[in-house]
Amino acid sequence: MADAPHRVVVVGGGFGGLQATLKLAKLPVEVTLVDRRNFHLFQPLAYQVATGALSPAEICYPLRRIFRRKRNVRVVLGDVDDIDLAAKRIGLQPVSEADTPDHLDYDTLIVSGGSHYSYFGHDEWQEHAAELKSLEGALTLRRRILTAFEAAELDVHPEHRREQLTFVVVGAGPTGVEMAGQIAEIAHDMQGDFRSFDPAETRIVLVEALDRVLTGFPPSLSAKAKRSLESLGVTVRLNESVVDVEERSVTVERAGGERERIPTRTVIWAAGVVASSLAPLLADRSGAETDKAQRVTVEPDMTLPGHPEVIAIGDMVSVRQKDGEVVVFPGVAPVAMQQGRHAARVVGDRLQGREAKPFHYVDKGNLATIGRARAVADIKGLRLSGFIAWWTWLGVHLFYLIGFQNRVLVLIRWAFSFLSHGRGARLIAHEETG
Amino acid sequence: MADAPHRVVVVGGGFGGLQATLKLAKLPVEVTLVDRRNFHLFQPLAYQVATGALSPAEICYPLRRIFRRKRNVRVVLGDVDDIDLAAKRIGLQPVSEADTPDHLDYDTLIVSGGSHYSYFGHDEWQEHAAELKSLEGALTLRRRILTAFEAAELDVHPEHRREQLTFVVVGAGPTGVEMAGQIAEIAHDMQGDFRSFDPAETRIVLVEALDRVLTGFPPSLSAKAKRSLESLGVTVRLNESVVDVEERSVTVERAGGERERIPTRTVIWAAGVVASSLAPLLADRSGAETDKAQRVTVEPDMTLPGHPEVIAIGDMVSVRQKDGEVVVFPGVAPVAMQQGRHAARVVGDRLQGREAKPFHYVDKGNLATIGRARAVADIKGLRLSGFIAWWTWLGVHLFYLIGFQNRVLVLIRWAFSFLSHGRGARLIAHEETG
Repeated sequence: MADAPHRVVVVGGGFGGLQATLKLAKLPVEVTLVDRRNFHLFQPLAYQVATGALSPAEICYPLRRIFRRKRNVRVVLGDVDDIDLAAKRIGLQPVSEADTPDHLDYDTLIVSGGSHYSYFGHDEWQEHAAELKSLEGALTLRRRILTAFEAAELDVHPEHRREQLTFVVVGAGPTGVEMAGQIAEIAHDMQGDFRSFDPAETRIVLVEALDRVLTGFPPSLSAKAKRSLESLGVTVRLNESVVDVEERSVTVERAGGERERIPTRTVIWAAGVVASSLAPLLADRSGAETDKAQRVTVEPDMTLPGHPEVIAIGDMVSVRQKDGEVVVFPGVAPVAMQQGRHAARVVGDRLQGREAKPFHYVDKGNLATIGRARAVADIKGLRLSGFIAWWTWLGVHLFYLIGFQNRVLVLIRWAFSFLSHGRGARLIAHEETG
Repeated sequence: MADAPHRVVVVGGGFGGLQATLKLAKLPVEVTLVDRRNFHLFQPLAYQVATGALSPAEICYPLRRIFRRKRNVRVVLGDVDDIDLAAKRIGLQPVSEADTPDHLDYDTLIVSGGSHYSYFGHDEWQEHAAELKSLEGALTLRRRILTAFEAAELDVHPEHRREQLTFVVVGAGPTGVEMAGQIAEIAHDMQGDFRSFDPAETRIVLVEALDRVLTGFPPSLSAKAKRSLESLGVTVRLNESVVDVEERSVTVERAGGERERIPTRTVIWAAGVVASSLAPLLADRSGAETDKAQRVTVEPDMTLPGHPEVIAIGDMVSVRQKDGEVVVFPGVAPVAMQQGRHAARVVGDRLQGREAKPFHYVDKGNLATIGRARAVADIKGLRLSGFIAWWTWLGVHLFYLIGFQNRVLVLIRWAFSFLSHGRGARLIAHEETG
């Protein structure tokens, strides 16, 4: 056989794209992994970067390093700006000044573009309300949170100081809950660091439009998480929607239509996810459907309708089941990882002339941490909370973190933080400081 | 005695200001430490951040944390924009949006503003030639160096790829030598990571206007350092001055006037130091002299002429000796640290009615590292090179690094890097990534 090898292009080096590429590397194919960044971000720990507990390099791993010894894998830094299904090629924008090819040809395309926050259609809120989907967002948040405390130390107006010490977290999913808990922990860790105020004055408000926190968990665990947050000093406001975000305030609306303006200088956004723009692009080119979060609907085997050579995975897709029902899987790492491995299996099956199988999600459980020795876990019906759940969380996150060195470093940082209440990465970034 | 406590304002949280504040904390005075940043930077290791070997948080330590238990020390984030010697107050610009006092009053002022690079009066070169004086500079360099390799992987023109893989380091002092050596090490560490070129093609050019590298060392060690650099693949060009820096080239001029244009995309600037703008400000207000690097000349006891209540230290000053000779001490951490402690002693002596003593520098030796197991050391006439000098360097730097946690983390990173040739912090920053 002197055939040219089958070319697979994988777009996105997140959890899905990474697992797909790792598995494809073992097949007789040529893989090109395209990402905007040169590293894989372990997003579940991004909130710890935002709060100065971990350093960016500890939760990021260079993609090139991962695939160093996989000679059939090539890593390309670039922005995907077009997908031509007929020509089987994607358009590529270089991320640096280089005379690069402006497209890549594929035999199979795997798209894993992820999602970002929607700001409920108010893009102008984004300026005042940073998010945690990217490392850049996490570092912006770190700078804002730490600067707010510094400004509170210097501010001579009691009212302004109160604004500086008020943190509003929008959305009580796992990320919002983790952030609210972590800010409470920072305030505690900083006891004694300031001279003109007591960090115990810090006010953390968690706003959620639904009637409980962590709606992905059973109600009993939501209640436990809420109590945990409250014991940390977090004010949990349920059934309230954010209707405005300005430079120095957030306005919420209760179910009855009553509005309240909360003065604050720091807003953390963790609500309203919307799929990557690659999802509507795929839908537009193929005629596939999208839902209101602009996810593209794929076939039971994760392929694009009418285009079995295109596979879309992760939280940018919804999946049509054989019975016609469209399912949205939770936007968590295990789903993306399983779909990534599934995508590689589809390629492998096809190479051997076998038909692609439908994707089945194996739910191993759900974890969320609230703070020091506080977490909730729902593992196949087993509901854990408190210290045991927290240990489970620690173990699972260390296990999945890429790179032995990172595991060791994170373990050390955590041990130090736990024992000393110190934060090793409490740096206020200017322009591009990490 | 119901006197108000003596107020000392220390400007700058570098090596000098930090040591002064630590020692002042033990005296019956009220100390305010002003810095633009919320952290102390261990500048001697900044080049390791620029090359992805260490993470920023590992060489930075929050100032507030250091002085947490020193209740007579207050840390203030701000930019000093004026010094009024008659009113004994400094003007303060807040670094964040806060209603802060616009000045601080002092009884004693200690100014430790440091230095930055001069670019030989060509400020326009700065855009293309980043430096290592600040954490921001180190992160800019990291992004540029790593991006150059990424661009080389994608660039389809062999000539452009050669430009991408050419790195020019200007100035062969300790920082320039360390950077040149580290880029050679990166290229070696990245063997196998790229598919369209061999990192061994990397070309590193170290340009020095004088006739040897490391002029602060004895000529025999300079010769050894040069051989070490060359064995790492660095081209050392002596007696050549940089006469132009453009986006894609550096032009050098030989002693005879002959010019050569070196095509490159990455220039690292480590030449021509100039004192902080606080030095000419102090000179202007007091009538003190400045030298061509705009250092202000202080009295033998480090006080400003005619203003015994103002002490200036570190590499922003030159010191007039009792015999009238003006001495410029090397711009290294040990000098700044000793002068910082001296400044605190001057305050202590005065409080007890004793006269301030002149400053004496105790030279403990000079160290520079070139790369993996390569360094030179000149310790009180004992000249070391190679592995022993490198171990000395490692030990000294770990010893002086602040924070036990940082020592442990850096030691682990170094051990991993040494054994695996890996770099844990190889992240390409966008906007504000660390």
